[in-house]
Amino acid sequence: MSNSFGQRYRFTIFGQSHAPAIGVTIEGLPSGFAPDIEALAAFLARRAPGQGKYTTARREADMPEFVSGLVDGHTCGAPVTAIIRNGDARPGDYENLRRVPRPGHADFTAAVKYGPSRDVAGGGQFSGRLTAPLCVAGGLALQLLGQAGMSVSARIVSIGGQTDPAAMEKALAGAKQAGDSLGGVIECVCQGVFPGLGEPMFGGMENRIAQAVFAIPAVKGVEFGAGFAAASMKGSENNDPFYFDELGVIRTRTNHHGGILGGITSGMPIVFRAAFKPTPSIGIEQDSVDLISRENVKLTVAGRHDPCIVLRAVPCVEAAAAAALYDALLESRCTQWI
Amino acid sequence: MSNSFGQRYRFTIFGQSHAPAIGVTIEGLPSGFAPDIEALAAFLARRAPGQGKYTTARREADMPEFVSGLVDGHTCGAPVTAIIRNGDARPGDYENLRRVPRPGHADFTAAVKYGPSRDVAGGGQFSGRLTAPLCVAGGLALQLLGQAGMSVSARIVSIGGQTDPAAMEKALAGAKQAGDSLGGVIECVCQGVFPGLGEPMFGGMENRIAQAVFAIPAVKGVEFGAGFAAASMKGSENNDPFYFDELGVIRTRTNHHGGILGGITSGMPIVFRAAFKPTPSIGIEQDSVDLISRENVKLTVAGRHDPCIVLRAVPCVEAAAAAALYDALLESRCTQWI
Amino acid sequence: MSNSFGQRYRFTIFGQSHAPAIGVTIEGLPSGFAPDIEALAAFLARRAPGQGKYTTARREADMPEFVSGLVDGHTCGAPVTAIIRNGDARPGDYENLRRVPRPGHADFTAAVKYGPSRDVAGGGQFSGRLTAPLCVAGGLALQLLGQAGMSVSARIVSIGGQTDPAAMEKALAGAKQAGDSLGGVIECVCQGVFPGLGEPMFGGMENRIAQAVFAIPAVKGVEFGAGFAAASMKGSENNDPFYFDELGVIRTRTNHHGGILGGITSGMPIVFRAAFKPTPSIGIEQDSVDLISRENVKLTVAGRHDPCIVLRAVPCVEAAAAAALYDALLESRCTQWI
Amino acid sequence: MSNSFGQRYRFTIFGQSHAPAIGVTIEGLPSGFAPDIEALAAFLARRAPGQGKYTTARREADMPEFVSGLVDGHTCGAPVTAIIRNGDARPGDYENLRRVPRPGHADFTAAVKYGPSRDVAGGGQFSGRLTAPLCVAGGLALQLLGQAGMSVSARIVSIGGQTDPAAMEKALAGAKQAGDSLGGVIECVCQGVFPGLGEPMFGGMENRIAQAVFAIPAVKGVEFGAGFAAASMKGSENNDPFYFDELGVIRTRTNHHGGILGGITSGMPIVFRAAFKPTPSIGIEQDSVDLISRENVKLTVAGRHDPCIVLRAVPCVEAAAAAALYDALLESRCTQWI
Repeated sequence: MSNSFGQRYRFTIFGQSHAPAIGVTIEGLPSGFAPDIEALAAFLARRAPGQGKYTTARREADMPEFVSGLVDGHTCGAPVTAIIRNGDARPGDYENLRRVPRPGHADFTAAVKYGPSRDVAGGGQFSGRLTAPLCVAGGLALQLLGQAGMSVSARIVSIGGQTDPAAMEKALAGAKQAGDSLGGVIECVCQGVFPGLGEPMFGGMENRIAQAVFAIPAVKGVEFGAGFAAASMKGSENNDPFYFDELGVIRTRTNHHGGILGGITSGMPIVFRAAFKPTPSIGIEQDSVDLISRENVKLTVAGRHDPCIVLRAVPCVEAAAAAALYDALLESRCTQWI
Repeated sequence: MSNSFGQRYRFTIFGQSHAPAIGVTIEGLPSGFAPDIEALAAFLARRAPGQGKYTTARREADMPEFVSGLVDGHTCGAPVTAIIRNGDARPGDYENLRRVPRPGHADFTAAVKYGPSRDVAGGGQFSGRLTAPLCVAGGLALQLLGQAGMSVSARIVSIGGQTDPAAMEKALAGAKQAGDSLGGVIECVCQGVFPGLGEPMFGGMENRIAQAVFAIPAVKGVEFGAGFAAASMKGSENNDPFYFDELGVIRTRTNHHGGILGGITSGMPIVFRAAFKPTPSIGIEQDSVDLISRENVKLTVAGRHDPCIVLRAVPCVEAAAAAALYDALLESRCTQWI
Repeated sequence: MSNSFGQRYRFTIFGQSHAPAIGVTIEGLPSGFAPDIEALAAFLARRAPGQGKYTTARREADMPEFVSGLVDGHTCGAPVTAIIRNGDARPGDYENLRRVPRPGHADFTAAVKYGPSRDVAGGGQFSGRLTAPLCVAGGLALQLLGQAGMSVSARIVSIGGQTDPAAMEKALAGAKQAGDSLGGVIECVCQGVFPGLGEPMFGGMENRIAQAVFAIPAVKGVEFGAGFAAASMKGSENNDPFYFDELGVIRTRTNHHGGILGGITSGMPIVFRAAFKPTPSIGIEQDSVDLISRENVKLTVAGRHDPCIVLRAVPCVEAAAAAALYDALLESRCTQWI
Repeated sequence: MSNSFGQRYRFTIFGQSHAPAIGVTIEGLPSGFAPDIEALAAFLARRAPGQGKYTTARREADMPEFVSGLVDGHTCGAPVTAIIRNGDARPGDYENLRRVPRPGHADFTAAVKYGPSRDVAGGGQFSGRLTAPLCVAGGLALQLLGQAGMSVSARIVSIGGQTDPAAMEKALAGAKQAGDSLGGVIECVCQGVFPGLGEPMFGGMENRIAQAVFAIPAVKGVEFGAGFAAASMKGSENNDPFYFDELGVIRTRTNHHGGILGGITSGMPIVFRAAFKPTPSIGIEQDSVDLISRENVKLTVAGRHDPCIVLRAVPCVEAAAAAALYDALLESRCTQWI
């Protein structure tokens, strides 16, 4: 089902932007694991709003309450469910969105899919707020990967096409001033990855990571290693030569393959990039339609919006990658040779 | 499991390059469907080798034998299994690959994952030959989508970074002469798509298509609509304005969203691109390792190879997209509002 | 995963007997459905304790709080999550169970499976209390089945081997007095079932209902139609003759097949029976082992216990059947001929 | 999907009674496993027809051809596909069954589910012949369980209500003479089972074994340990006392729980029984309906039939149990504590 991810580390995300709560139920956590709650809080804080001048002012206390699965701070083998209460009151000012879908948003497709009962408040189940429970599931996976010596770390490589920090800052300021928004690219690197994770064909690490990362709102592209640039390279340039390093470990001189060959990890770092489109919610008047009167109308979106969601999406990309990677790790303990 | 795809249109691909057969078992075909076998053969012929001077000379008669699920040319409700016999004898000249993995190939990761019993002949289960059963499953899905008024059509947009046909041809000739290889980019467009297909979050059409497309060997990136270019656009540029067309259908003026918003189809054409790395098998000497003697060695790959797999991959991309789309179509008949 | 059930109506149950909460997340509910909360409460009340003199005195206010998926009383297309707070304080008097597993209980297998971090309080995740969220998921399915003209109704057919109500009552009184417990058999009948639900082989209605019903603690057997009695019949006795009834509907004169042939519903009522073993928790001294000191010991279980869980299990059986049936109903809307 | 079973040892069965072939694709076999083909043949021979005077005379050479997944007699990590050609020509004498469904058979429900294109020849996909590929998948699982010290062994405990071999024989002779058929009960015992296999709730060993066993045609009931008899016992009788045996292993004095507590194996033998209804195909005239003329008619079934399928079903029950058990074994290697 669409809100569930994974085979062995399997979780289901629930909630809408203005439901009483959002949350996640996780199956597959080993019994006896003691999550580092402070580390999890710090991880969640990286995606919380109000981090800087270019993120929404909406106030959220995103600390999850663990309502099942933990006893005295340890997992007990039962599914772990964490809920995050939605503190803000449900506003009545979303009714206009019921009539006029925002360009670039899921408002229109939600209307087609779910009809008049859909939840329009704050984007409903399509809200970026749902990445908070993703970060809970991914944040716990990160801790378990860490115990196995693996790390996952993402960073912004461009915003609005700018790769220099000062130029990014300037572009953001310009977009904010204009009531406009910017997209960007986030790169994620997984270090210490065991070779042999993932499976051929549909179960490859690329397939799994892509399935997870495309669940983050606004992602429109995912590429691994050299990615789209590899399409312009020759085989003699793109192929990564193998060699034994000083410890006798087989490595590659370059990493155009991004740590994955045939869907299976090579032991080199997994490297991928996700392209985020600019936030659809902008303060500039746009063309849209009225779903009730069935006529073309102008739309101006008011309210609190991030001019650039990329700033807050970094831990979400890490969470998605960590979930996919830990799922594959659990799986490999069954099926890997040796 | 890794060789299976889909929820409602679910198929499992089996076989290795030099096993007695490769094939696919498909569950979810409606009862009473009469596949157009000639159309399927024509579709498969587009990916078969020997299509031009830049594809491998290996001779394959890729027509599937339907061993179950069809009675008098119609599906009967039972799973449909098609097998394709591997006519070529299994060569003994792959033994070197058991020792020395080819850079850029799955040889190394297969060794890690499956140990000494792995099938090294012709790439074993990682062979591009396994895209033939993918094209059987996808080709049948295409026919059923066609009955519903949908089409899926892919084309090459670049090879070796060249977008002009003459320049592509020249680049291919140069690569062949040099014993080198080239990658490329394939764009796929799905027309006539019903709005409302796909699900939020992990079940989005982007997630599903990406999961299918990354199963094609050599794919290293997938982007939808404006894709990575969207990351450099402003919201006011990237947002696609809605309007009612002359028939009263809601459409968008531009299609930067590639027909998918919030994971769900908007009714605009689905547009995506897949980046293919250059074929790893090249005739140029490369650095590798000997897995037995555990020393660095030089490798020169002999044998029949495509200097550019992109030429044959076009129907594979269509097949992957069709499988994902038809799966979502079957699913929507259950869960869609109305 | 083990706490999840279903393909199209898919839910995941979470919680332990003394966790902060138990609950369920449901995917697959149609958008726009308005659950009858009072009817659901009445349904849940049938499994709640304190119903009569033979059920535990533990006080539970089992009304679920819907924290996601409902807007103004209607489903919105997002997953529905309901949580039930565990009001009773977590007692410290379960520590003995950490050392000495109760015969007939999951205490021992929980220790093997989950180790020292397992939740022993009140049976942890193995508690019969987890049937409350099952009844939430099943109770909503019942309402949707009702809209389609189907009903599910279970009743007790025997307790302690007695089929006469007066004899059951007497047996219960005797068991309670002796500190002992009794099992029983529950029969469930589904009326108004569409023909054509279910699938062949592993997806048969028998397989699905059995998978759901065996999730209810203490169930040790499931039989359909004539069940085990059919094994003693001749084909000429057991076969159910077909005929056209006065409305031109094909029916069978008898219903030894219990409404299911080849895994698929025939349109006759689905009839099945579930055997419940006697509640393992009894007041009589028993032989057990001390897992710490590793010696044979005597165990006397104190505390609140049902002498017969069968009295409260009737709606649980209905819930399990309804969940399996509604799941098959949603599925058939995709794949059934016509 | 309905023809697929398992999570980690996952297989899909395909084919119909008179399709060109039947077969199975298995994912999850470890790489490097060398199946004992002779042992598998001997196992399959136990379910083949023509074993005695009470089984059908239809001649089948049921030896599977392994078309993928094996290299030089060893699994290579790719899915294993085995096909069994259907040697007998497809008869034209099944056309009457297209009009008049046999009482007790899936003929009627197949017509409802799959419409006029359904395969009626020999029962199509509902044929007991499909248990041959089940025995391939289960037979390989049995060998792998054997390597882990586990065994699975089934036997007939009653036929036509008779438990004495001489009485069974007499009942069979009487049924054959009368053109009638008999059912029976098969008991299956799994020895050497590790404690800790299976999961709580829907993933319990009872749920999994039941899901597999109900896939065998004619099974109408499954019970574990004391099963339905437990419903008439007191807790003090049914509870199995724990003790340390002479080797310090925790065991139970009795095994009313059938080796499973809370869905998880206790280390005691798994014991279950399956009830088989009498074969529906009998030589005696029966009442049925004509689906075309829509009138009540008489039906006399000609052709080759087993008067008692139970004789051939013993290895099928073993195969179903072995598949479920091996699947749980692979799973436990991921998730079990320690």
